[in-house]
Amino acid sequence: MDHPLTSREFNENLKQLPGVVRRRRPLVHCITNQVAANFTANVLLALGASPAMVRAPEEVEEFVPRADALLSNLGTLDAVQALAVERAVAAAGRVGKPWVLDPITAGLSFRLECVRRLMTHRPAAIRGNASEILALAAVIDERPVDPAALRGVDSTERPEHAVDAAKALARQAGVATAVSGAVNYVTDGERLLEIPGGHPVMEQVSGVGCALNAVIAACVTVADSPFDALAAGLKIFSVAGAAAGKTAPGPGSFSALFLDYLSTLDTLP
Amino acid sequence: MDHPLTSREFNENLKQLPGVVRRRRPLVHCITNQVAANFTANVLLALGASPAMVRAPEEVEEFVPRADALLSNLGTLDAVQALAVERAVAAAGRVGKPWVLDPITAGLSFRLECVRRLMTHRPAAIRGNASEILALAAVIDERPVDPAALRGVDSTERPEHAVDAAKALARQAGVATAVSGAVNYVTDGERLLEIPGGHPVMEQVSGVGCALNAVIAACVTVADSPFDALAAGLKIFSVAGAAAGKTAPGPGSFSALFLDYLSTLDTLP
Amino acid sequence: MDHPLTSREFNENLKQLPGVVRRRRPLVHCITNQVAANFTANVLLALGASPAMVRAPEEVEEFVPRADALLSNLGTLDAVQALAVERAVAAAGRVGKPWVLDPITAGLSFRLECVRRLMTHRPAAIRGNASEILALAAVIDERPVDPAALRGVDSTERPEHAVDAAKALARQAGVATAVSGAVNYVTDGERLLEIPGGHPVMEQVSGVGCALNAVIAACVTVADSPFDALAAGLKIFSVAGAAAGKTAPGPGSFSALFLDYLSTLDTLP
Repeated sequence: MDHPLTSREFNENLKQLPGVVRRRRPLVHCITNQVAANFTANVLLALGASPAMVRAPEEVEEFVPRADALLSNLGTLDAVQALAVERAVAAAGRVGKPWVLDPITAGLSFRLECVRRLMTHRPAAIRGNASEILALAAVIDERPVDPAALRGVDSTERPEHAVDAAKALARQAGVATAVSGAVNYVTDGERLLEIPGGHPVMEQVSGVGCALNAVIAACVTVADSPFDALAAGLKIFSVAGAAAGKTAPGPGSFSALFLDYLSTLDTLP
Repeated sequence: MDHPLTSREFNENLKQLPGVVRRRRPLVHCITNQVAANFTANVLLALGASPAMVRAPEEVEEFVPRADALLSNLGTLDAVQALAVERAVAAAGRVGKPWVLDPITAGLSFRLECVRRLMTHRPAAIRGNASEILALAAVIDERPVDPAALRGVDSTERPEHAVDAAKALARQAGVATAVSGAVNYVTDGERLLEIPGGHPVMEQVSGVGCALNAVIAACVTVADSPFDALAAGLKIFSVAGAAAGKTAPGPGSFSALFLDYLSTLDTLP
Repeated sequence: MDHPLTSREFNENLKQLPGVVRRRRPLVHCITNQVAANFTANVLLALGASPAMVRAPEEVEEFVPRADALLSNLGTLDAVQALAVERAVAAAGRVGKPWVLDPITAGLSFRLECVRRLMTHRPAAIRGNASEILALAAVIDERPVDPAALRGVDSTERPEHAVDAAKALARQAGVATAVSGAVNYVTDGERLLEIPGGHPVMEQVSGVGCALNAVIAACVTVADSPFDALAAGLKIFSVAGAAAGKTAPGPGSFSALFLDYLSTLDTLP
């Protein structure tokens, strides 16, 4: 891995992005898991975006054209939700709406098959932890996924070990990709941006990564590029996470302070 | 719209209603969405009611007779939940249990069809935002629903613009109806009561409306009429929301303070 | 009921258990309900365990062998989740992974049938409120369950009235069993341990019992016996609940303070 850009390179457009989201109030259609649905909705609302959790296979094709972006999160996937996600991303492709992939625990066979089908309807952006990005890169590359590398939602790898996989994935699939963890990396296959992690306490709070991808979907609707949307989303969580983590006595208090901070955020440092 | 009553007209019975709920501890059977289920349960518990989230089509007919009231919330509806809701309201009709409708995003075709079937088993009360009430009034009237008027869970209309629709709906369907927003209106088709909104921060907290309808269902079990139950539920949220909103530094802190306040509420001002 | 042991008998191994969980970071596979999923995940994370909520019938058999323990919670059960739970416990039996049963509202016929099938794949431990344990003991004994005794998730019985049923259940099914409430009882059919309840406010917080059983599953992976895992889990909730309950102004604030406390807990008093 060669010298990555750092977040110092954030241009003025990027820094203004939270305020732009708040003024435009993008409607983000989230098909997501039962664990993170509530926190995800609250994070979007705190940033001034509008969440909608429509998830029936009977409804998603009707709703996708009304929304500004789609989030496809594969946590707690079941057959009904897999059908909904596949219909939704196909609809997004037809009407030109951007969608973001959250490839949670993609190492399970059922989800890997789902991911393979989803990737044929190119997402605008992908963000996952190191294990998830390594698994996804293997899928795209038609290599077997190492089951030992997957342990629930935890990553068994450090983010820096998935940077090459993220670059390869971004190039092969033509999708801006981010690996997150103690440090975050964003790449479009050429550029590589490094963004500091927020605060260690965030690893003790369920749904942070899921909510982050919903914010990336909100940012995609207003950013110059999906690369910028990933950078902005990660920076928002880095800044708000550091601020809330410094004040919070623990992971329980963190969530409330994090949402409070997000609700006041207009300009990134 | 002519001169509405205001909440000054609250009689003594209505003011005592939170305390009555706490003493009677009604069991509220909530069929609700994945986003608001947890907050809804916590709001009912804070008020001293008892929530039960039984939702399998195989179980609802057995459970409805044991509960004191039923909430049918159509958020994140899927085919299995639609079947459960339809069986549940039919069972409620057979055993004479009151049920409350939360017509979330009723503008989607699948939900509109579900709502049409549900309305044949008359609910005791309905509460929605302006867009939802306008859509529901159109359904009852067999007019087409304007899809442009629906934008996820956000209302694209102000509450005062849905008052006539609420009155018509209340008269035609024989159901006490409320429109909520920055100001709330309650009507039984004749009377119209205006109740101030709680606090603007409530619009940044997911599940507030859903939890409100569960509280209305709890109030239906002890109030003199569904009209009174709507008035009491809205007033409880108005008072608790204003108190928590004044203290809370943001939407994250709001939820905890709101629940804390509810847990001490016995008499409405 | 004769003289129960009290928690004074906690040996040093048991007292160190929270720290051991934090160091070993067991992966707990939770098949649980839509209401408590988020709080359950956050409680496990606060204690340093790793939650995974894999719930599709297509996936559970692949995931069970990767996890360290399984939680089967029957709240908001539907047919798909019933199938998932049954496949998961059968898989747990085949690969020798311990599983914990949370028999929520087991009095509904559909769940009673499910519980009957689940109990043939012996759980390591069971924890429920008095009504749930009485119902489960009746099921094992092939006696009818009294429907009047079941009222949603509330117990209509006091814990001390279910101690004999818990002992009989533990003996007949060979499963360590706990009854929880204002006072908690743990038994393996011979020994009986009494552990004080945490704080009355916990009855106003949704998902506390569900999260407790997930913690018991985490403890099973490191304790000397399922009896010890039940004792440790109940003691953790008793200690953390008392600490958070004393500080919290109400049930809304309680959750955050409870998680904060859990995140610092290493040794039981």
